[in-house]
Formats: sequence, structure tokens, C-alpha cells
Amino acid sequence: MADPATSTDSEPAVPAVPVGLIEELVAAVGAGHVATGADIAEDDTHDEAITAEPVTPAAVVRPGTTDEVAAVLRACDAAGVPVTARGSGTGLSGAAIPVPGGVVVAFDRMKRIVEIDTENHMAVVQPGVTLHELDEALTPHGLVYPVFPGEDSASLGGNVNTNAGGMRAVKYGVTRHHVLGLELVLTSGDVIRTGGKVVKATSGYDLTQLVIGSEGTLGLVTEVTLKLHPRLAHSSTVLVPFATLDEVTRVVPEIVRSGVGPMILEYIDMLTMAAATAYVGLDLGIPQEVKDSALAYLVIVLENHHADRLEADVASVAEQVAEAGAIDVYVLPSAAGAGLIDAREKAFWVAKANNADDIIDVVVPRASIPTYMARVSEIAAESGSWIAGCGHAGDGNVHMSIFQADADLRKATLRKVFEAGIELGGAISGEHGIGTEKQQLFLDLEDPAKVALMRRIKAAFDPNGTLNPGTLLG
Amino acid sequence: MADPATSTDSEPAVPAVPVGLIEELVAAVGAGHVATGADIAEDDTHDEAITAEPVTPAAVVRPGTTDEVAAVLRACDAAGVPVTARGSGTGLSGAAIPVPGGVVVAFDRMKRIVEIDTENHMAVVQPGVTLHELDEALTPHGLVYPVFPGEDSASLGGNVNTNAGGMRAVKYGVTRHHVLGLELVLTSGDVIRTGGKVVKATSGYDLTQLVIGSEGTLGLVTEVTLKLHPRLAHSSTVLVPFATLDEVTRVVPEIVRSGVGPMILEYIDMLTMAAATAYVGLDLGIPQEVKDSALAYLVIVLENHHADRLEADVASVAEQVAEAGAIDVYVLPSAAGAGLIDAREKAFWVAKANNADDIIDVVVPRASIPTYMARVSEIAAESGSWIAGCGHAGDGNVHMSIFQADADLRKATLRKVFEAGIELGGAISGEHGIGTEKQQLFLDLEDPAKVALMRRIKAAFDPNGTLNPGTLLG
Repeated sequence: MADPATSTDSEPAVPAVPVGLIEELVAAVGAGHVATGADIAEDDTHDEAITAEPVTPAAVVRPGTTDEVAAVLRACDAAGVPVTARGSGTGLSGAAIPVPGGVVVAFDRMKRIVEIDTENHMAVVQPGVTLHELDEALTPHGLVYPVFPGEDSASLGGNVNTNAGGMRAVKYGVTRHHVLGLELVLTSGDVIRTGGKVVKATSGYDLTQLVIGSEGTLGLVTEVTLKLHPRLAHSSTVLVPFATLDEVTRVVPEIVRSGVGPMILEYIDMLTMAAATAYVGLDLGIPQEVKDSALAYLVIVLENHHADRLEADVASVAEQVAEAGAIDVYVLPSAAGAGLIDAREKAFWVAKANNADDIIDVVVPRASIPTYMARVSEIAAESGSWIAGCGHAGDGNVHMSIFQADADLRKATLRKVFEAGIELGGAISGEHGIGTEKQQLFLDLEDPAKVALMRRIKAAFDPNGTLNPGTLLG
Repeated sequence: MADPATSTDSEPAVPAVPVGLIEELVAAVGAGHVATGADIAEDDTHDEAITAEPVTPAAVVRPGTTDEVAAVLRACDAAGVPVTARGSGTGLSGAAIPVPGGVVVAFDRMKRIVEIDTENHMAVVQPGVTLHELDEALTPHGLVYPVFPGEDSASLGGNVNTNAGGMRAVKYGVTRHHVLGLELVLTSGDVIRTGGKVVKATSGYDLTQLVIGSEGTLGLVTEVTLKLHPRLAHSSTVLVPFATLDEVTRVVPEIVRSGVGPMILEYIDMLTMAAATAYVGLDLGIPQEVKDSALAYLVIVLENHHADRLEADVASVAEQVAEAGAIDVYVLPSAAGAGLIDAREKAFWVAKANNADDIIDVVVPRASIPTYMARVSEIAAESGSWIAGCGHAGDGNVHMSIFQADADLRKATLRKVFEAGIELGGAISGEHGIGTEKQQLFLDLEDPAKVALMRRIKAAFDPNGTLNPGTLLG
């Protein structure tokens, strides 16, 4: 552990760590679990937000128990030192970027799967458990936690704080729909339990739902109770090239209405498809002339507990998309299907590898996607920017990579892209969150009466503004 | 309109209406839509909570627009007069009981179905629209709002404020899972819009979810955006008598895990079954010897978009329950199936007709129902009370009718019944809410740190405590 005094001397703008705080943190979690100065790992200074600058905090602490979290938070709150929670650091909005002079509470030591309850179909996990670890533990029980935001090293604590979504949301919903209870440490050091192993309750305000998506600004989550689903045995991936995005989005509500209950309804534009399949080295065997005329692809994944029903549903969907003007319909072999989903999940890394200047995920009403994307194209053209996209067509959640090196021009362009989404009844982010990176735009574009109300709610939880300042509400 | 002065003279404990307030209300909504004194309808003085005493408020106003609601709320808040929102008055917890000297805002004039959006599968409704009216409007579109709390004269505004549930929650979830956006009037008179026609968003605190289930204590809901589902064409009802409740609840997770996705999984005890079928005049054709040995019935409703799949699922479920020890399995003809669900939905009226002294709806983890009901039997026996039950077995939501005429003894017994539920990880109410009637017990049994936090949240919305005092937090 380095001397905290030396780590702040070189950056005069950074507030000094109050005398005795580091000692309190060491007393709370043990010297081996407090890093300061040069001992702070580079990885702990940032998340995956493309535009955010890494920040070295005054200290990174790694508590092992809820009581330790409470002791850390109480000490920081009393000392007036900001606290940033950190899961796996896979967030895309900067909500886990440390505050200069602040303390990062990293949850990677709290990664116990406390219980898999096969009778109630629930799991109780500590916040540091990753999606991958949970999935591995559930497989033998024939159960699944169906929220797949596309990065399986993400932690459940992080998922709760960003209300993570992903491709399966069209069938299963997002994190919000699967978190039934929380253990939460307040800045006072009080530990409360919200909800529990019940699928519904009307017994006071739903604090669980309020904390979900709050980006670490209301309390520190130390345990999560999750709803599970039966893991269905059979699934099939259908890839459908269309000449226009408009056709893709028009067929989506029809597929939903048919009752086949698709697990994934994803659109991928031609540029993203080419880049993503190349990135993972996947050849889908699509003839060149189809590739040449396809401006947008629809990916449909169906699942069922009966193989014959799945087959019938695939045939029915194939007929539906053909009638809707598909250029062709490919029912992918299992390995190619998995490869395509894998490629789509890596869209962020593809964008990063291609030097995208930012990535965003506006959400609009599902049926407004064509209107929205047409408007986005205009906005991109006006500023000489380049915007590639793919998205959760069933949810109206459009993921875009922005290529515009000039920061000011990019910011102005993004503002227009967000405004266009809000005008259609949408929101700035479907699942990435606001974080530090979209915080100013969020405040600029949101109704001031709502922002004021959110600030009062924030103060009800965190009167001293200790938790994650600079994020969401500033 | 009677003179407000005369309506308060006879009850000295009732606060006088501030000078000029009635005139302000008349100016806001028109003289024809303000009732005072003897002009107040008896129906507006209570909801359906069995134990609650009717209260005549100072005035009942019936606004026709959001602006009128805002004007009424602003005037009452400025005058320090309590406001109680009223939908159809079908609530069971007293949350729509007026406050002496207060103003009731009744929403039955705001009953417009603003939009049925067949592309996005959403409906936008005013709060006074009833479930019945919405269902009739959706049927021609092949869509359904699947939350069926069992009383179809209930209003959507009331459903939002109690987070209404019902029998289909095991498949579709509750109100919370279907409300995507709200228009909300704050006590300041500010009108905000939360959420919208998007199925997910991570853009600030989820105010929509916070208001759902808040029992009219945070704001007045003036518009609701609802998620709809495709209306599946085929359904079938299976009635399964078991010798013990334990067997019923043990088979429930197995049915869920099988992947058939039941729409209803309901248990009905022998007493409730006898009373409910007699109440609606339904003969299910069950032989007397089966009735004599059946202590509990499981009702399973399956639905599908293919008739052949439904048939196969029914056969599979029948096999499953037979293996689990069912006395017999009855696949009911369509009319009898509908009759049985109708009888179950009327359980409240049956209890009322049989002079139940109270009805409650504790929720526990699904697998804990047998343990819980055994404990409830002990508690009932200890106090010489009589408790009959039925419930949403798939949700762990147990509806009980309490027969104990002595109010003090009943209160002590109920406290033990609630405590037993909470000890098992449950909550006081799954869907009825806390209201005026369980308010004191809620405060007694809930964690004080959580209650304090809820009070701070309440103050963030309603600093003067204008909305529904006496309910929930007192």
C-alpha cells in the first residue's frame, strides 16, 4: 500500500484524502484489500466507455462482507469522500469511472452464489458473481437466468445498477424484470433488505425497482435475489436478409403477434454484419448477390421445449418473412447460429476495433425504428459523420457506432440523435445507462421537474451526495 | 351542491374546509362536478375493505382533464387539505377511503382509451377506464392486457396504485410488469411524464415503477401506457383434487419447470371450493367420494396459439399431476372451466356473503405455502378463529378469509399470520396493498430504516403530506 499523501501531491486539483480515512478503510477490510497510489491497478481506473478518461482514485477497497461494505461506506460518508461502486467494469457509460480523490468499492471478492433455489426457481447471488459463473452454475439444474447483455464477464451487481438488457429482452424482459430482492447498504451504514423470494408484493414503495438502473447513486448492492426460468432444450436461428430496414421493422410486430414468442429479434445493418462476421471469422455461406442487395438483416431465434414445435414455428416464421419481402431465408445450422449471435454480441468490440468514436443505444417505440433510422442518417450526413447500427428490433433499442473524430461536432451530432429519439417518445439509453458520459446531455434534454424530483429522491437516500457524483444527476 | 359549512358542523372533530377552497374546486372542474355534504354519493365514502368505516369527505370532485386534476391538487395542497384518489372503489385495503375534511378526486370522468397501438402492442388509457372496457376494446385487435385481478369493474388507475395482480400473474406478471409509462400530477401542480412507449430504458430513476403500488401517496395518475400481448386462441382448464395441500404445492414447481407455461396455477381449499361453486351455482360433476377425500384443489389453465399443442400440453400436465398423487384429473368443458374461474374470482364476494370478518393476501415464497398454511392453521386454532383459503399457488400468494368477530383478538391473530409470512421471507400483501386497514401493522412489522427511507421518498414527492394521509406510511 502506497502512502496516500504521495499519491495526491502530484495532482493539485485532486482533494486530499482526509486524515485517518485510509486507516479506517484498512481497519474495515484489511490492509491486503486496500490499494492506493501506484498500487492501484490500471483496470480499476475506468470502465469500457469509449470516450471516458481513466481516473486514479485515492483508494480502491475490496470488501469481503456486507458489514465491511457498510463500514467503508459509513467512513467515506462521514469524511465527505465520494464512493464509486465497481463490478466487472464492463459498463459502457462511465458509471464506474472513479472520482478524483474518491474511493472505489470493488466487488470482485463478493462473488458467492449464495443459493440456487430449484423449488422457487430463484438464485441469490453476491454482486461480484458474473453472468458466466451464474450460467455455469444453473445449467445442471435445467434453469436459466435469461438476461444476456452480451458480455458474460459482467457482474450481477453491475447488471442491477445499469438495468442491463440484451438480445433476449423481447421474450424475457430486462434485469428489472428478474430482480426480486436486494440487500442494500445505505450511506448511513444501515443495511436494508428489499423484496425477497416473492414474485410480487404490494407492501410499501418498491425500493428494489428504484435501485435498479440507479447507476450506483442510491446505495451499494451487496446481494441480489434473481428470478430464474426453465432452460428450454431446443432453439433455432433464422437469418433473413431484406432490401430495406423498413421491411425488417414492419415484419417484427407481425412475428410478435403470431404468438411464436421469439427469444431474439435482432436487426443488423449491412456494415455491422460485414464487420462483425469478419471479426469472429464467420462465413454464413450467403451468396454474394444476396449480400449485395441486403441493406439489413433480421436475426430470429426461437426456442421451445419440444423439437417438433420448434420446427413448425421456424417454418411458420420463414413463411411470414418470405411474405414480407425477404430476399431469402436461412435456417442456420446450430454452430453457425451460435456464431452469428456471438458475432452480434461482439458488436461493441467490433466498433472499438474499427475505431468508432462513440457508441450509444437509444430506445424508441419499436414501430418507429424506420422513421428514427432515416432521421439518424440525415443527422449523420449533415455533420459528415458516419453511423452504423444494429439493434434489438423487438424492443426498439438501436445500438449505433458513431465515427466522428471532432469531439465538439460529435457532441452536437449526438445531441441531435438523442433529441430525435426523445421526439419519437424514446429515451437516451435503453440499457447502457447515462453515466458520466451522457450526464450533461441527459440533464439538458430531460424535463426539469423530473430532474428536480430525481434529485430529491437521491437526497432521500444519500443526503451528502457521497455515491457516484458526476454520474446521472451530476 | 350543499353548503360545505353545514356538512362539517355535525362532526366537530372534522377540520373545517378552508374558506374559498370549494369555490376554487368549482372554478377548476365546474359546479356540476363538485359534490359536498348531502350531495356526496354513499359509494364515494368507502372502497370494498371489509373492516373500514365509510368517511364522508368535505368534497368529491370529478375532473375531466389533466389540467383540471392539476388545478385541484394545487389548490388542495396550498390549503393544506388532504386528497384521496378514487378509481372504481374496488380496492380491498381502504386506500380509497376519504379523509375527514378532505377532498376525493374521482376519476370516473377520465375514462378515454386514448390509443390502441397495434404496431407497438400498447394501449394508452386514462385512469378511469375499467379492465372490462379495455378488454372489450382490445378483443377485435387480437390483443390482450393480461392482468386479471378478478374484478373487471376495477379501473386502470386503481390497478396502477395497488399494483394489482390476479390469477394470470404466474405467466404474465402483475401490473408492475405491464405499465410502461405514466402521466403524473405532483402536489405542486407540475405534470410529468414517466417512461413511454418503450419496453425498457436506463435513463434516470424509474419513476414509473416507484409510483406503481404507491396507493395514491406520491402523485395523481392521469394517463397510463400499457404493454399488451397477443391474445392466444386456445385455452383449457384442468381441475385436480388432491388429498393434501402439501401435494398441490409440491407439484407446482414441477409444472412450471416442464415448460408448458401455465397461465393459471391456483389452489382452492375444500371450504372455499364448496362455498364458491355454490355461490355461482356451478356443479362440476365431481363424485361425492372424491369431494369427501379432497382437501385441496389445483386449477391449471393452459393456453396456446395452436389447438394441437394445447391438447398435448394438457395431456402432459395430466400425467404429471397423476404421478404427483392427484385423486383424479378433470379436463373441464369450456363452459365449466370458465365457470370455475368465475367462481374463484368471486372468492371475495363469497367470503363477504359468508360474513368473513376480514380478508387478506399474504405472499410467501411459492415453495413455502405448505409450511405457511400449517402455521396459519395453528395460529387460527390458538385463537379460536377460522381461516379459509385459496390462492395463486404459482406466485405464493395466499388469499385468506378470517372469521373472528372479536376485533382485538382478530387483530392479534392477523398480526401473527403476517409475522409468520414475513418470517418465511414474504410480505403482508401480494396485491391488495396496505391501505388504511393494515397501515399500523405494516409500520409495526417493517424495518424502521426502510420506513424512514420511504418517508423521505414520500416527502420528495409530497412535502406537505397532502396525498392520502392515513394510508401506507400513515
